[in-house]
Amino acid sequence: MDWSRKVSVQSARVKESSIRGVVAKAMRKPDMVFFAGGEPGPDLFAYGEIRAAFDKVLRDPQLAETALQYSSSEGVSGLRDWAAHQMTATGVPCRRENVLITSGSQQSLDLVGRLFIDPGTPVYVQVPTYSGALQAFRAHGAAFRSLWSDGSDPPDAPSRGLGYIIADSQNPSGRTLTIDERLRAIEVAARLALPMVEDDAYSGLRFDDRPLPSLMQLSLDGKPVDEGWAIHLRTFSKTIAPGLRTAWIVAPSPLIERLTAIKQGADLQTSALSQLVALELVERTGGEIARRLADAYRSRRDVMLDALRVEFGSDVTWTLPEGGFFVWMTLPDGIDATALLDRAIAAGVVYVPGRAFHADDSGANTLRLSYSMMSPERIREGVHRLAVALRPALARTRPARSGAAS
Amino acid sequence: MDWSRKVSVQSARVKESSIRGVVAKAMRKPDMVFFAGGEPGPDLFAYGEIRAAFDKVLRDPQLAETALQYSSSEGVSGLRDWAAHQMTATGVPCRRENVLITSGSQQSLDLVGRLFIDPGTPVYVQVPTYSGALQAFRAHGAAFRSLWSDGSDPPDAPSRGLGYIIADSQNPSGRTLTIDERLRAIEVAARLALPMVEDDAYSGLRFDDRPLPSLMQLSLDGKPVDEGWAIHLRTFSKTIAPGLRTAWIVAPSPLIERLTAIKQGADLQTSALSQLVALELVERTGGEIARRLADAYRSRRDVMLDALRVEFGSDVTWTLPEGGFFVWMTLPDGIDATALLDRAIAAGVVYVPGRAFHADDSGANTLRLSYSMMSPERIREGVHRLAVALRPALARTRPARSGAAS
Repeated sequence: MDWSRKVSVQSARVKESSIRGVVAKAMRKPDMVFFAGGEPGPDLFAYGEIRAAFDKVLRDPQLAETALQYSSSEGVSGLRDWAAHQMTATGVPCRRENVLITSGSQQSLDLVGRLFIDPGTPVYVQVPTYSGALQAFRAHGAAFRSLWSDGSDPPDAPSRGLGYIIADSQNPSGRTLTIDERLRAIEVAARLALPMVEDDAYSGLRFDDRPLPSLMQLSLDGKPVDEGWAIHLRTFSKTIAPGLRTAWIVAPSPLIERLTAIKQGADLQTSALSQLVALELVERTGGEIARRLADAYRSRRDVMLDALRVEFGSDVTWTLPEGGFFVWMTLPDGIDATALLDRAIAAGVVYVPGRAFHADDSGANTLRLSYSMMSPERIREGVHRLAVALRPALARTRPARSGAAS
Repeated sequence: MDWSRKVSVQSARVKESSIRGVVAKAMRKPDMVFFAGGEPGPDLFAYGEIRAAFDKVLRDPQLAETALQYSSSEGVSGLRDWAAHQMTATGVPCRRENVLITSGSQQSLDLVGRLFIDPGTPVYVQVPTYSGALQAFRAHGAAFRSLWSDGSDPPDAPSRGLGYIIADSQNPSGRTLTIDERLRAIEVAARLALPMVEDDAYSGLRFDDRPLPSLMQLSLDGKPVDEGWAIHLRTFSKTIAPGLRTAWIVAPSPLIERLTAIKQGADLQTSALSQLVALELVERTGGEIARRLADAYRSRRDVMLDALRVEFGSDVTWTLPEGGFFVWMTLPDGIDATALLDRAIAAGVVYVPGRAFHADDSGANTLRLSYSMMSPERIREGVHRLAVALRPALARTRPARSGAAS
């Protein structure tokens, strides 16, 4: 059978992640330093506490039955209540009915995409933005536009559309929006009458004790979730472990009802076992696991920033992340990070070229470095290898003054 | 914000499951006999073995790291190999590349729907058929047609389309297709040039040792999976537990590649922890858990069929399932099972009206009874309550001769 003539029109929009291909290729080589991927450090998982939580849930007869049986599409009530309480504690009145538990934030993005996007619907994003969101929204036919395109906004608000923003320790840029930038994003979304999706995967891994107010919090200004037009995405993948496949959406209840119906057709429900284990962990450890992880990632960030200062000159710039996993590097104009990847892999280090994070395939001279997975020693070694791999290209673009030193 | 003007056109096609509403409503009443829902018997889960498998995976440093980390979208290699071996053992040459692990069969249905269905694509189904498949395919705009509509098939095969068939212990009818019926389904699909999806959730819960060849097996006749046009869906939800949220798709490798890309955008991956636990359970117990479950469900089926014979006369008919969870009851024409549901719930028993399983909303005089969740004593009591609830309606439609006896 000629499958290409049998598959749907909608499926032609689906593209595989270029990042996963890069990582898979590089993983087959020994002694590789992984600055690609966005995985948590495997040495940092709270193995003992997670195992104890599974054991506790599966030993309790009533919890075990709930955990192993079919369960509601909305999610386990106790976990929805916990999520609502977390939001309320930041000054955003929130009820259980404002929360839908999902099978990871990628599913949250897909469900939100299904709810708001048809072929051609404008989706306003940061540049760069998270490649997984581009992938999820593109599958539904999103027409991407820059959220910050001064003056080029359409004069009239589109009848449909969506804003997508990562305000804290963004993947891929590592940038955290200032309060002013947050207020401006809210103003843009309001002017265009856009529902605004805030993907908050990393605020739980902030490196200091001065959290910034979320876009949801700022836009509501004390009003309850139901009275706003912000949609807030959270996940346990970074603060506990991706293997739980447990995340959640906070949104006005009419949207949660629609998203629940969509989720029911998409995968019925998220594992109640994972939900009960996550609830046990957050209730028993009270955020301690996330604090330990944030401490470890701060150390790794410090090592990477220090090594970058040592190894690179002023013709290369990078961001200074306040949390999360990522440093974003910008090379001089005319250097293509994709073209240099093979040389980097040959030198024993792998990164993600920045084009994957641009809807319009721009950003050729950028790349994403993740410091989350590697030990401090390996980070130093990796940055050194990166400098060795990039040096010839940098030397060619350097003004004669610097070039003479090489 | 007026959300109804902001949501997508595609989301207007999404309908919530009517079954979940029925079950939720009835569950709030005490002493209810649940013949609704399609859940496994909660008393039958292999609690100890499942807990031991989680403990084993999470105690092994290498397995624990794989389990908790991000993992490949295709699934864990060991589990894909196991699934391929299972298929090969039934005479269908199958490789790892023919297997995609999913987060439950509902996700398999959604992914297959995305791959083959655009608005208006014809989808040929049995009448009745599984309501969750109608829900998943309807979300993508399927135009449902009866697979068995003699003579009314379009003269030319549609350029796109899909066949969807449950051959073993069907949900909802409890029917198992004979070899002749299977061959006829294959012939119809071939004539219409339809990719054929076989949803095999229940063949692992067959009540005797005479398994019938799957549609995939019959259609391939010894050829490898890659040379056919059948797509085979399996799940651990019935043979281990729904809480694992682990199922798989067997299909030609070009389709697995496309389905993998779609899954990547939909939820990145299925929990590697669940996959490793499922693999541990099938490798260590070798199907023993499924055999114990099948024995228990056979006893429950026997009790239900016996009680139906005792309580109902010849004006009501029902199926004789050879496996699975369900008996399908047909009432005399003119009796509406939906209208009688409130009376049944008042009598302390709940079922699912048959209309939920008909794409065209027909089947008013049918209903689905599940014997999976209740103990033998409760099944007897429930069938008695059902007879009491239906008696007045049955008496009104009965010929005078029988009516005189009441």
